Amino acid sequence: MKEKPIELVMLFDFYGAMLTDKQREFFDLYYNEDLSLSEIAENEGITRQGVRDAILRAENVLNGLEEKLGLYKKYGAIGKGLEDISRAAQDIRRINAENYFSREIDDKVREIIERIKDITE
Amino acid sequence: MKEKPIELVMLFDFYGAMLTDKQREFFDLYYNEDLSLSEIAENEGITRQGVRDAILRAENVLNGLEEKLGLYKKYGAIGKGLEDISRAAQDIRRINAENYFSREIDDKVREIIERIKDITE
Repeated sequence: MKEKPIELVMLFDFYGAMLTDKQREFFDLYYNEDLSLSEIAENEGITRQGVRDAILRAENVLNGLEEKLGLYKKYGAIGKGLEDISRAAQDIRRINAENYFSREIDDKVREIIERIKDITE
Repeated sequence: MKEKPIELVMLFDFYGAMLTDKQREFFDLYYNEDLSLSEIAENEGITRQGVRDAILRAENVLNGLEEKLGLYKKYGAIGKGLEDISRAAQDIRRINAENYFSREIDDKVREIIERIKDITE
């Protein structure tokens, strides 16, 4: 199961609060902290199989939640999209400042940048 | 409990899939279709109290999920923010077209509008 599956780690950010404390801890140590199953088992004083089962259960819970709610699919890509919008807005501001000095356009661009801040805060 | 609580109805959109079929159905009839508890009870052939209990349980589930996950708080306002950004971008496009005809600015604005479409689709 290793090789850090990006989507699973993103689902953990979205839905991790729905896992049990143990599931969350093991998942985090395994995927985010990159410990091995054996290392986690040793630290926790349980079997490697026990750790593995907990992580697999966690993966099932995360995948099941996304299957039902679909919130990662709907909102997961927003951060990237807003970065692109922010960059384009900054470009407009620069082009406008260097060429036209339109106060109206500058105001609108600042409004866009403010809204992006509101959303991402 | 009536007087359509906006946040609760938004939480229903986010997390409704986690309710049981009955909870979802009663919640929807009561808050979205505006039927009374008695009307729902009569249609379903159960007591008014039974309907009321199911809806209260649904509300508890929705509030509990938001308390744990906080995804509505984090993403719920995005739609409104993107509309504002879209409107400002359209304004820039118009001002630019009427006054400066900068192809560069127009390209950037179209990029912003495209990104917003990507996000909201």
